[in-house]
Amino acid sequence: MRTRLYNAKILTLDGGFDITEGEIHTNGGEIDYIGKPKADMPHFDTEIDVKQNLLMPTFKNAHTHSAMTFLRSFADDMPLESWLNDRVFPMEARLGEGDCLKFCAVAMLEYIEGGISAFMDMYAFEEETVRAASEAGMRVVLSGPLNSFTGSLAREAQLYEKYNGSDLTVSKQLGFHAVYTADRELLEGLAELSHSLKAPVFTHCSETRTEVNDCIRATGMTPLEYLDSLGMWDHGGVIYHGVYLSDKDIDILKEKNISVITCPASNLKLASGIAPVERLIREGINLGIGTDGAASNNSLDMFREMYLAAVLQKYITGDAAAMPAEQALYAATVGSARAMGLDCCDVLARGKAADIMMIDLYAPDMQPQNDIIKNIVYSASKKNVKMTMVNGKILYMDGEFCLPSDTDRITAEASRAAEALKLRYKESLKES
Amino acid sequence: MRTRLYNAKILTLDGGFDITEGEIHTNGGEIDYIGKPKADMPHFDTEIDVKQNLLMPTFKNAHTHSAMTFLRSFADDMPLESWLNDRVFPMEARLGEGDCLKFCAVAMLEYIEGGISAFMDMYAFEEETVRAASEAGMRVVLSGPLNSFTGSLAREAQLYEKYNGSDLTVSKQLGFHAVYTADRELLEGLAELSHSLKAPVFTHCSETRTEVNDCIRATGMTPLEYLDSLGMWDHGGVIYHGVYLSDKDIDILKEKNISVITCPASNLKLASGIAPVERLIREGINLGIGTDGAASNNSLDMFREMYLAAVLQKYITGDAAAMPAEQALYAATVGSARAMGLDCCDVLARGKAADIMMIDLYAPDMQPQNDIIKNIVYSASKKNVKMTMVNGKILYMDGEFCLPSDTDRITAEASRAAEALKLRYKESLKES
Repeated sequence: MRTRLYNAKILTLDGGFDITEGEIHTNGGEIDYIGKPKADMPHFDTEIDVKQNLLMPTFKNAHTHSAMTFLRSFADDMPLESWLNDRVFPMEARLGEGDCLKFCAVAMLEYIEGGISAFMDMYAFEEETVRAASEAGMRVVLSGPLNSFTGSLAREAQLYEKYNGSDLTVSKQLGFHAVYTADRELLEGLAELSHSLKAPVFTHCSETRTEVNDCIRATGMTPLEYLDSLGMWDHGGVIYHGVYLSDKDIDILKEKNISVITCPASNLKLASGIAPVERLIREGINLGIGTDGAASNNSLDMFREMYLAAVLQKYITGDAAAMPAEQALYAATVGSARAMGLDCCDVLARGKAADIMMIDLYAPDMQPQNDIIKNIVYSASKKNVKMTMVNGKILYMDGEFCLPSDTDRITAEASRAAEALKLRYKESLKES
Repeated sequence: MRTRLYNAKILTLDGGFDITEGEIHTNGGEIDYIGKPKADMPHFDTEIDVKQNLLMPTFKNAHTHSAMTFLRSFADDMPLESWLNDRVFPMEARLGEGDCLKFCAVAMLEYIEGGISAFMDMYAFEEETVRAASEAGMRVVLSGPLNSFTGSLAREAQLYEKYNGSDLTVSKQLGFHAVYTADRELLEGLAELSHSLKAPVFTHCSETRTEVNDCIRATGMTPLEYLDSLGMWDHGGVIYHGVYLSDKDIDILKEKNISVITCPASNLKLASGIAPVERLIREGINLGIGTDGAASNNSLDMFREMYLAAVLQKYITGDAAAMPAEQALYAATVGSARAMGLDCCDVLARGKAADIMMIDLYAPDMQPQNDIIKNIVYSASKKNVKMTMVNGKILYMDGEFCLPSDTDRITAEASRAAEALKLRYKESLKES
């Protein structure tokens, strides 16, 4: 399957922010050519006139819990503790087999229409998540929800073996939920597994002040220091959130080559805080961006996250020049991809996987084109996505999904499954 | 022209947040009926099956500078002073006749596709703004950019007379730019005009710490106190931004029946701060929401503003329960309308003007429908707007504008005019 995308503006993000004019050819899942029209063209199965719209790398959603779409708008505008204990946990406890597949399928649609080609997912029912991704044609990286109550080291090792094969659209990273849900023995075991596999470890870390203070009280160390003392970062790693970071934490991030994934919408909505991402970038730490799950965000929209990542830094630094648009765009695409172990599709270049988004430059909110990158970061929304291509396949074009499944059926099934789950939850409330 | 919108979910915002099922009939520019299907139906020119999507009041953009689309992404990621003095002012000085008409025309498209039916505009070239609004079918409220360098009291009075007629789609409110651009004589004159017309006054106020501190240094009073001492609020008023407000300021807002229009995106991006809107609502002050202009935002998207209005309050209060979704939705629609003097179209009710938005409830980001209002505030974007009706006319439906003008021509003309303006600006830089 060869596709030609011609008459395009192209932002490769491969070594800079220049926008050139030309075309991109894909062959199977790979980018075959980027440049001016060639004299000797191969035969293409599909040729698309991009009409001077923009081709650029897709977003990579570096932290999410896809299945949690069922909790969207189920528990908002309430304090964090009752959100988690009275609503989220009891509903999750009632999930049945096949539910997550349906809830993830809705998330896939939301990713695809929003220009996202890959997501790093932390949730149980990993097989259902992988199946939903694969049925939609999405790229998924699993990173464990392992904690003292769910999962096991043996399962972690087994999933690592199972999902790190030749298929670039599925991979598995070692991970655990958070220091406050994993006991020391489990963490030591995971560090050992990381050593034996020479693999980095991924986890929620320093999301709230309470988490950090509790960890200091229990161990005398911040979460990052504590995990470092257990050898958790000896092969690098990734932390999600990173809102509360000490100077020493930042030294550890640098020394141990740990990426930070910022989730600004979730952190605002749950009143957790604003991560110091402008400083992280200044210190040379790799920054990615994630949506977190629909229970806390509530949308799975990387345009919103990228926008917030930029403007919130201006606010907290008091400097309108802080965190320019280019840095936010880079974090949402290349930075996220690298944190996820997806160097295969981080930028647009020959030999890279063909994860390509087309942005509509004729939309009213893109006028005039004084600066296309600033327009994308500060003015664009999901509405500006004209095409999402993942691994060489077009999954979305001009407002329509190009999927084998019936998307109306997907949303209806998820809706019915969510209603059934709520019913089980309400009945349990009556019983108790 | 009678239109029937049937098989709908309906959120009237008329006295609560209940969502009912039924239909809405419009007759000319007015809402004729809301309720269950009737036995004795009149003849309709158009009947639309809403298919259980949601009908609700449109957004009212209560503070904007529509013509400033030409400066979108022209001066970002730079300190406020150089943004204003080196970029915005020199470009504005080179605006020619007819330019604003073209730049406003692009803003109209952005408003319409984003579910906005009315905007309160502060800019010179008022006639061109009104013409752009009228050609697009939008509702406009002018509020003066009057200052010591632009406009005059005579012109303010003349526009007030000219645009407050029987046509509900155009109105004019008294206004001035800000305390730091208007001398005392001008302000006294405007207060006098307000007294003679018994009309409220609209202005930028307490947007930055610098503005407030400078005013205190010059007058011994905050901007609100200073204006109060001149009798400016004797017939009520509206302030845009209101980021830095003292307890005494808040007392003045209450006593003098002054609405506050918050512009969260602009305030974040220019590192101005976060307005204490949760407190304002608690104190019973009417809150509206505005996008500000494209030079500082950069988009004209009320979904983004409404979302930010809610989540930023959770952040600054440290309470995830602060500023619930319903309050943000109310401010972006009813609160804005009332501040703008548009009681004619604040809610959906019989006899009100038919400014109606249809939200696509089948979109992936609206699944499941655990809570439709929270879904709209926390998860929706412009992409979810299926229809925008203004004054009984459908201006946008299913991704297509229903306008007499060619929208491609509108964006192309604005783009060419912006390029010409930049050329004049660059040539002037060479000369100087």
